[in-house]
Amino acid sequence: MILAKVIGTVVSTRKTDSMTGLRFMLAQPVDMNGEPTGAAVVAVDSVGCGPGEWVLFATGSSARQTEATNNRPCDAVIMAIVDEVEIGGETRYRKGDEA
Amino acid sequence: MILAKVIGTVVSTRKTDSMTGLRFMLAQPVDMNGEPTGAAVVAVDSVGCGPGEWVLFATGSSARQTEATNNRPCDAVIMAIVDEVEIGGETRYRKGDEA
Amino acid sequence: MILAKVIGTVVSTRKTDSMTGLRFMLAQPVDMNGEPTGAAVVAVDSVGCGPGEWVLFATGSSARQTEATNNRPCDAVIMAIVDEVEIGGETRYRKGDEA
Amino acid sequence: MILAKVIGTVVSTRKTDSMTGLRFMLAQPVDMNGEPTGAAVVAVDSVGCGPGEWVLFATGSSARQTEATNNRPCDAVIMAIVDEVEIGGETRYRKGDEA
Amino acid sequence: MILAKVIGTVVSTRKTDSMTGLRFMLAQPVDMNGEPTGAAVVAVDSVGCGPGEWVLFATGSSARQTEATNNRPCDAVIMAIVDEVEIGGETRYRKGDEA
Repeated sequence: MILAKVIGTVVSTRKTDSMTGLRFMLAQPVDMNGEPTGAAVVAVDSVGCGPGEWVLFATGSSARQTEATNNRPCDAVIMAIVDEVEIGGETRYRKGDEA
Repeated sequence: MILAKVIGTVVSTRKTDSMTGLRFMLAQPVDMNGEPTGAAVVAVDSVGCGPGEWVLFATGSSARQTEATNNRPCDAVIMAIVDEVEIGGETRYRKGDEA
Repeated sequence: MILAKVIGTVVSTRKTDSMTGLRFMLAQPVDMNGEPTGAAVVAVDSVGCGPGEWVLFATGSSARQTEATNNRPCDAVIMAIVDEVEIGGETRYRKGDEA
Repeated sequence: MILAKVIGTVVSTRKTDSMTGLRFMLAQPVDMNGEPTGAAVVAVDSVGCGPGEWVLFATGSSARQTEATNNRPCDAVIMAIVDEVEIGGETRYRKGDEA
Repeated sequence: MILAKVIGTVVSTRKTDSMTGLRFMLAQPVDMNGEPTGAAVVAVDSVGCGPGEWVLFATGSSARQTEATNNRPCDAVIMAIVDEVEIGGETRYRKGDEA
């Protein structure tokens, strides 16, 4: 899974029928310091996340292993909201501490 | 899914039988400002998109989860036309505003 | 799918049984001007292509969706020979015009 | 599989139900000298590894081929703890020699 | 498939049960001149290869399409030993000529 920050949303009315009702989030992969790494990805939200939150997203066929995305042309799904990232005994991120 | 701009088409008469009748679009991945990121990809159109439009495409086995691409050697499918991209409450792209 | 130019062949006598009889082509990904982008890939030929031709190859599990590659440890298959690439109403490549 | 070093953990309480009970490890891909290569990945632990250990992780649908991850939206799983890496007859890494 | 050179081995005693008995090889992707391209990958050997040999490895779910790797958390398998690489009518590599 990839650590990412939700930075925005994408709206689409004309899409494959099976994608109806799903929310498309712009997920920016980040490193342990919250710095962007690589290009943003559009991922379906399966956990009720919102802009600013740190999340994990899964890709490929694994992105279809949720009720929301099963059998759909979806290759990225947000499947967890991150509470804490710890490295070497040190907390690098804690939800709510963002500012 | 990857945010991309449709920039062209690819024509092929000699191809795997199962690909007959499908349209191959050149999809250029873009960032939130419409700037190209990485190499263009050839994706099958499942939504009736055209050159200049912003779209989402799905990759891998997820690209086969549409009626058009099911069981076919297709690893990229355009499954949504983008109406709007919003980041931090600000609209960064709206279909029709391109000029 | 990825736009590529066939630049060579790879011969292997000792290989997984199920790969017997398949042709391994060296496919160099190219951009719309025919310039190389990224590393070459070894792809199974499912359309009878030859060196110098522009082709499309599919990757991952989608590479197994042809008769030649079904159930085989194959993650890249050439599934189309390109006749024409058009961008913005302009033909950027036409088969036979190479020189 | 990718050679990586476990550098931390990620905690998430709000996640897809099927991910309950799994441990998310931060896995930093490394080269044969232990130097980081590319971005860290969040992988599910299926072998009882801990911070500082060198491991192998598998990605994509292959990451779901363990009891812990079967049918779950998991695209990276740690499936082996590395004892030794040998290159050209020379041991480059041996578990326990880290210092 | 990716052209690679076998450069070493990885030993692991603590691993997912289903991986027992498999050999993990360090495969360094190379270009047509044998120069390294990108990071080394750990691949399961399904053909009896050894250090120094040029091989092809397949990735993703395709890496599970061999008897050795079926249903296992394996995302890279060496499925062919390369005898010869030919580009533009010129032999760029022939097994046994390495020196």
